[in-house]
Amino acid sequence: MPIKSRAEYLAALKAMRPNIYKFGRLIEDVTTHPMTRRTVESHARCYDAAADPEWEKLYTATSVFTGGKILRWNSMMQSSDDVIQNMHFKRQNYRRTGTCTGAVCVGWNAMNVMWAVTEEMDREYGTDYQARLKAWILGAEQKGLTVSGALTDAKGNRSKSPSQQADPDVNLHVVEVRKDGIVIRGAKLMICGTAAAQEIFLVPGSGYKEADQDYALACVVPRDIEGLIIVEARRPSDTREQEETASMEVPESGITQAWLLFDNVFVPNERVFMCREAKYTSKVIGYFTANYRACIGGCVTGQGDVMIGAAILMARANGLQAKTFMNKLVDMSVNNQVTFGLGAGAIALGKAHPSGSFFADPLTAHTNKVMVATLPYEVKRLTQEIGGGIVETGCMPSYADVSHPEYGPFLKKCLKAGDCSADSRFKAARLSEWLTIGAGVPGCMHGGGSPDGARLVVRFNTPMEEYVDYARKIMGIAEEINEGK
Amino acid sequence: MPIKSRAEYLAALKAMRPNIYKFGRLIEDVTTHPMTRRTVESHARCYDAAADPEWEKLYTATSVFTGGKILRWNSMMQSSDDVIQNMHFKRQNYRRTGTCTGAVCVGWNAMNVMWAVTEEMDREYGTDYQARLKAWILGAEQKGLTVSGALTDAKGNRSKSPSQQADPDVNLHVVEVRKDGIVIRGAKLMICGTAAAQEIFLVPGSGYKEADQDYALACVVPRDIEGLIIVEARRPSDTREQEETASMEVPESGITQAWLLFDNVFVPNERVFMCREAKYTSKVIGYFTANYRACIGGCVTGQGDVMIGAAILMARANGLQAKTFMNKLVDMSVNNQVTFGLGAGAIALGKAHPSGSFFADPLTAHTNKVMVATLPYEVKRLTQEIGGGIVETGCMPSYADVSHPEYGPFLKKCLKAGDCSADSRFKAARLSEWLTIGAGVPGCMHGGGSPDGARLVVRFNTPMEEYVDYARKIMGIAEEINEGK
Amino acid sequence: MPIKSRAEYLAALKAMRPNIYKFGRLIEDVTTHPMTRRTVESHARCYDAAADPEWEKLYTATSVFTGGKILRWNSMMQSSDDVIQNMHFKRQNYRRTGTCTGAVCVGWNAMNVMWAVTEEMDREYGTDYQARLKAWILGAEQKGLTVSGALTDAKGNRSKSPSQQADPDVNLHVVEVRKDGIVIRGAKLMICGTAAAQEIFLVPGSGYKEADQDYALACVVPRDIEGLIIVEARRPSDTREQEETASMEVPESGITQAWLLFDNVFVPNERVFMCREAKYTSKVIGYFTANYRACIGGCVTGQGDVMIGAAILMARANGLQAKTFMNKLVDMSVNNQVTFGLGAGAIALGKAHPSGSFFADPLTAHTNKVMVATLPYEVKRLTQEIGGGIVETGCMPSYADVSHPEYGPFLKKCLKAGDCSADSRFKAARLSEWLTIGAGVPGCMHGGGSPDGARLVVRFNTPMEEYVDYARKIMGIAEEINEGK
Amino acid sequence: MPIKSRAEYLAALKAMRPNIYKFGRLIEDVTTHPMTRRTVESHARCYDAAADPEWEKLYTATSVFTGGKILRWNSMMQSSDDVIQNMHFKRQNYRRTGTCTGAVCVGWNAMNVMWAVTEEMDREYGTDYQARLKAWILGAEQKGLTVSGALTDAKGNRSKSPSQQADPDVNLHVVEVRKDGIVIRGAKLMICGTAAAQEIFLVPGSGYKEADQDYALACVVPRDIEGLIIVEARRPSDTREQEETASMEVPESGITQAWLLFDNVFVPNERVFMCREAKYTSKVIGYFTANYRACIGGCVTGQGDVMIGAAILMARANGLQAKTFMNKLVDMSVNNQVTFGLGAGAIALGKAHPSGSFFADPLTAHTNKVMVATLPYEVKRLTQEIGGGIVETGCMPSYADVSHPEYGPFLKKCLKAGDCSADSRFKAARLSEWLTIGAGVPGCMHGGGSPDGARLVVRFNTPMEEYVDYARKIMGIAEEINEGK
Repeated sequence: MPIKSRAEYLAALKAMRPNIYKFGRLIEDVTTHPMTRRTVESHARCYDAAADPEWEKLYTATSVFTGGKILRWNSMMQSSDDVIQNMHFKRQNYRRTGTCTGAVCVGWNAMNVMWAVTEEMDREYGTDYQARLKAWILGAEQKGLTVSGALTDAKGNRSKSPSQQADPDVNLHVVEVRKDGIVIRGAKLMICGTAAAQEIFLVPGSGYKEADQDYALACVVPRDIEGLIIVEARRPSDTREQEETASMEVPESGITQAWLLFDNVFVPNERVFMCREAKYTSKVIGYFTANYRACIGGCVTGQGDVMIGAAILMARANGLQAKTFMNKLVDMSVNNQVTFGLGAGAIALGKAHPSGSFFADPLTAHTNKVMVATLPYEVKRLTQEIGGGIVETGCMPSYADVSHPEYGPFLKKCLKAGDCSADSRFKAARLSEWLTIGAGVPGCMHGGGSPDGARLVVRFNTPMEEYVDYARKIMGIAEEINEGK
Repeated sequence: MPIKSRAEYLAALKAMRPNIYKFGRLIEDVTTHPMTRRTVESHARCYDAAADPEWEKLYTATSVFTGGKILRWNSMMQSSDDVIQNMHFKRQNYRRTGTCTGAVCVGWNAMNVMWAVTEEMDREYGTDYQARLKAWILGAEQKGLTVSGALTDAKGNRSKSPSQQADPDVNLHVVEVRKDGIVIRGAKLMICGTAAAQEIFLVPGSGYKEADQDYALACVVPRDIEGLIIVEARRPSDTREQEETASMEVPESGITQAWLLFDNVFVPNERVFMCREAKYTSKVIGYFTANYRACIGGCVTGQGDVMIGAAILMARANGLQAKTFMNKLVDMSVNNQVTFGLGAGAIALGKAHPSGSFFADPLTAHTNKVMVATLPYEVKRLTQEIGGGIVETGCMPSYADVSHPEYGPFLKKCLKAGDCSADSRFKAARLSEWLTIGAGVPGCMHGGGSPDGARLVVRFNTPMEEYVDYARKIMGIAEEINEGK
Repeated sequence: MPIKSRAEYLAALKAMRPNIYKFGRLIEDVTTHPMTRRTVESHARCYDAAADPEWEKLYTATSVFTGGKILRWNSMMQSSDDVIQNMHFKRQNYRRTGTCTGAVCVGWNAMNVMWAVTEEMDREYGTDYQARLKAWILGAEQKGLTVSGALTDAKGNRSKSPSQQADPDVNLHVVEVRKDGIVIRGAKLMICGTAAAQEIFLVPGSGYKEADQDYALACVVPRDIEGLIIVEARRPSDTREQEETASMEVPESGITQAWLLFDNVFVPNERVFMCREAKYTSKVIGYFTANYRACIGGCVTGQGDVMIGAAILMARANGLQAKTFMNKLVDMSVNNQVTFGLGAGAIALGKAHPSGSFFADPLTAHTNKVMVATLPYEVKRLTQEIGGGIVETGCMPSYADVSHPEYGPFLKKCLKAGDCSADSRFKAARLSEWLTIGAGVPGCMHGGGSPDGARLVVRFNTPMEEYVDYARKIMGIAEEINEGK
Repeated sequence: MPIKSRAEYLAALKAMRPNIYKFGRLIEDVTTHPMTRRTVESHARCYDAAADPEWEKLYTATSVFTGGKILRWNSMMQSSDDVIQNMHFKRQNYRRTGTCTGAVCVGWNAMNVMWAVTEEMDREYGTDYQARLKAWILGAEQKGLTVSGALTDAKGNRSKSPSQQADPDVNLHVVEVRKDGIVIRGAKLMICGTAAAQEIFLVPGSGYKEADQDYALACVVPRDIEGLIIVEARRPSDTREQEETASMEVPESGITQAWLLFDNVFVPNERVFMCREAKYTSKVIGYFTANYRACIGGCVTGQGDVMIGAAILMARANGLQAKTFMNKLVDMSVNNQVTFGLGAGAIALGKAHPSGSFFADPLTAHTNKVMVATLPYEVKRLTQEIGGGIVETGCMPSYADVSHPEYGPFLKKCLKAGDCSADSRFKAARLSEWLTIGAGVPGCMHGGGSPDGARLVVRFNTPMEEYVDYARKIMGIAEEINEGK
């Protein structure tokens, strides 16, 4: 089967039931609406690349089930190389869109995680979850789906578990188990790429105890399923995307993040891969974060690559030479490669699960999360430093002003600096703003969970007492030294 | 004379000729237009404070000329204590508005700098600049003026001097010297608080050589002077300020930065304080940056104070205790106090100019600029880290959605977390966004010049050969060790 | 009275009873013994400078009591300028000796702190401590004394108070109050410059409660008082100081830190300034650390100045140009000036005590301690980076090898690189080693207390709830948001 | 063949000709002399481990030539897993000795690098270098050799090439090519583990041009070869190793670094693997640094592991609980794992050479070098911070004092704090000192080359123009933006 084309992908999106809102209004067609078409464009470029001989190798893969050629983001990751290719894919994707591409990311990871967890559950409970999942994966491969993934619940009070919340709907939960499926209800938040997705893979947002078993729930649903309302979050400067002169102010590609409101949605059994097996929710989180926080090195580094390019563009647009800032550019590259290389290291130190799925080393992956929550902020800071005042917040007029018949020409004179047009410098400045403080900035901090959570994993994966013993033996300290009281 | 009231201040602004544009449209009344009324509000609060017994001491001062009570931002700074009070004033102002307050800042500094430089020029050239300036200051004191200050020119190609530019108008310059005044032309950019200012103090943006003498120019003009067009720059998320539900999305106070286009503007002699004395432009820059980069510790720290408050608010709104994040909060406070204390140190190590003006120590002040271009970014990062995903970019719907009749109630349920209403958590999250990545973020990086410029000053104020001699003497190395070739 | 000369100072030291040990052996004459003569030399240079017209202004002061000219380190600090001069003095001293100079530092600070605390105690208890202190100060001024200061006790178990310790002697305490004086017992540790001191000023090492009143004790004793044994601590590479070729391996100046063992030492009343007034021990610590942690910016910066010089020396000795490393050198200078400027800022933001003593602002001073515990380590790292492998640990033979008749000439050939002799490069490399990892490194980390203690002060001096209120008001959040539970 | 035992290893060392000097004196027996026996002990523990079922898997490998079991450090590294095992080996080794182990490190890497380069040279020049190398490797495997590796030359003036130096001997060079071998002359510096090595693998220290062909030279020589004089460098505090109470002051394991002086040494052809092929010297450096700077993550992390252990020991010895410092301990662990994971990532992103040798990705490996030159310094700083003043420089007496009959008991009382003996606290404090500022600190900074060299590699491996193109395309900037002039 040939790989699905951009046209087919767009047609599939157009055919869906409108259920996405932003600014209080329903979006009829996500492929053309200014608030969603940029994230759709980002994803469409994946389909372009899969059909492009130059990129085909990275954007497609071989099905472990059929041996056929499939889209990479529909594939199983069963070796360290498979997971490292995920990183390369994310990095390259970011370089080509300037942002991350949600519906070829989390859903893919969730599918691979559930492949392992369903096997464990099936072994203990005699369920047939893995068979259901396999059937769905085969369909996804064949249809060449884009699939968002949703973990984070609204959560409510952070010091209480789901069943202790005043309102049960702040976490997605099973409200009814029927013979043919389940009814689910509640909210998932900050879900990336939903507007460009055909389906959404839902997995638990945290490890739960027995008391919270109704919240132990994994399944996959069409994005336009009945009962689901999607509300797109707003981003800094996102209203620029609907301006007349938007092409001067923002790129053609983009990203969105949504809140998903499930109002008693029925999911048939063949799409359900976990239902009340609370004990296995920690496994989902453990496997998911290991690979996610390793591979996040890919997108974060792609973001950094584009910032290096944007910074050089601005230096030149200002009439300077890039080498003036070489020390800072090398700092940026070092910061980038730390997150990429550390992600690759987490994968290289990882291991295969009996199911075939491959998972990165948690200690290293969570260490990478800590880096990802710090280093890119320095890269952004440097992008602003190199670019000059004009890329910093609030220092350049809108293009509506720049093209004003009366004073626009004067503004254009002011914008002219290096060996390029005023318009190119305008765009270059907007790009740096967009990358560092505008609508193009995805969340490095809490995306995939908080850095403090990662530090906890680091803490519990650091064998501190073993290190104490090494220290004692090296110095020849025979007695135990106990904790103070 | 009683201190001018908020009402008088607003009336003065209303009475001015409309010459400010944003988004291609003329703003008729800056005090009510959604794009400018927030910065006006920030400044109005200064007038409130000057009349408030609690704040009066900080917001007013005693005229060195008349002995009368005047607004602090109209006063001469002639001792280290005067300059340190400037820092306290800026810090307090930021705490009360959440942003910086441009028309009680740069103009004030420029006036004090020109007090010193006019004395030096008068001494060499026999001019009467200082007398003119004194006359203007007496008027400003009496009228209780707000005065923006404008240094930065559009500059054009950064590797060329003003007279080498393809277009002379990319730097403000004298086009004609008449008997009764001068005609000026060109652009000043990124000028803060103009919309709230009654006058604008213009000083050179760089040190110039003789060939660029036309660009050596200092004067003060009414904000609505004939021939001046002002274009307000856009900021991330500034369109939120004009939304129906703006009160939920952004604070009532704010900031703006403008581009000033001078199209053959006539300035009468009594308002001109430098005209073609290129040799003294470096003095202007030197004195200006010394005090500016010392005092910037005030506003940057005020910003940090508010971020500490905002972070604690969010922790609580999420249902957590602030002490969970104490380590991060202390890091934030340490970073804050470095910039404040270092600013105070620069002032303490400064010295009085023969004219009476007091200037901070350049080495320390420019060291502070380097800190200001780095530490607040870490404070912002921590604000986002403590606040959780909801304060990060693009993770919360608009209030238009939250108040939507159909799905709004579900969103509100999702927003409820800690011991407060959904609306309060919404606002708290928006505040952290506004402070870190939204319309409220002033430029720490290039405001007052670039950190690389500051590093140059550090370099030339570090007596490296003297340090080499200390090292040689300590180790008893008798011979000189020469540079490699 | 003329200022005391180096010769008089050395004679005074020679006349003292030997009571200092190192490596298990008694040191008969501190002025000539290789283990102590370097710290004596450092102090002797202070006497030189006081008599040197070039430095006199910094190294002497005017007695507030007699109006006479005295050594600066015997003077009262009663204005911000006095305390800032302390910083300049420390910085300059470090530049001329390559290390810190203990007996013109802590004792001086302790004397000024006790001036304030004795006034408070006298007011409450009707004691005459301040009069006693004044008498002693007048004598110190006249004799031109060097006075070490001792705070830190051995402490014992860190989770217990002094009276709860298994052995009372791990903290200095009063064992008997006689009519004519007190008997004291216990240990003070890590006391800098004792070998070069004529007297030692003892103050409490912590704030104590009533149960620990015996440990509330301040007095001053001759360094060679009966019952006191002093044991000098060892330093990395300190044995080099006693080698035959020591002049090639280490500088002529130096530093020492000692443990003081008080074995029932009688102190007459006129030398006692606190005896069991536990309530005032916190005041001592509060005042002491405020000034100490502000002024520590002086010595730490002097250390950095010398490291800049040493790094340039090495670059040149390697055959390179200093400008190759300009970016790193500017980083070093920025780090230096942060600690200096922040110290000056703490002082500028400080205030006068009713007694006349002037104390720095605690929040800023303790912020500086946090900087002092981090920034100099980066300066050291850069010194090693610029110097090349030869200055790093363990990469250069001893001079015994370099001067070996057989293979020494070959080693000298290897040492020759830039435009200087092999011997000069050898010395330059040793200097960088000595400054960063050798016998010349004083403690930036715990000297004057731990950075975690400083963070506690920052925490309690940051008005967090006030900041929360600013945040709430800015965003118009009317309701209180309470802590999570 | 059974793996060589500790006893056989020590016997082999004892049988060698004495040619190592320190402090001007010849060391007769490296296995017992206090200046060398600690590094020998470190290596002996490798032989122990190879024979220990618990560690055998990590310390031995399978010969790719014979299929027999060999010591890991004699093995070929021909897959990413082989190189990652090198990292694990280095980390584990450090944990067991507290330092690095030079003669199972650089020589091993050099041998694998030359395997690839000899193949390239043989292909171009028709030489038989690889066959010679293979013969030697087979012998090394069989004998279970320890082999130091030597790259760094004395270099002389850093701005000149070897042939431009005033003295040719500052770089190792070929002075004569005979029929049966070559005669070499010159100096290699800072060579780790030589005292514990049986042979030394010599490779070029830099990439050379044709004019410097005499310096293009690779061979392996017995450590005690005629004409070679070895001078051990001194380390901070190394004289403690020869004190009577050394067992209290320093560990039993250790490290050394030496200067090698070759005075017309004859090397037979079968031991020569490069002779004047200047063109291939860059390959040697490129391959060597890629693997070395990836694997350095292993030893540096092992060092960090021991510092975590040492810090916890000190916290407890002070009477506190380790959890008091948990935030710092997690910081230490994060820093550790960055260097380890990044090394593993460099290897995972590497590739196989046609010869079979496997080399890490240069961009990532050199990024790791930059991390290695910074992060461990922070870990050391934290070790000192947690440990308290007693572990900082110069704050604890020698054990000669602690065991002094008169005042020793008082010192012991002072040393008692937590739930352990005074002696254990003494040792724990010495360990932290030794690890951070004492004789146990190997060079993270310049070992394996300078971080600035690594930054150059990062610079040239960052495709900056490609990134500019991504930025342009994302923003739709059609025109080229040229460099300023």
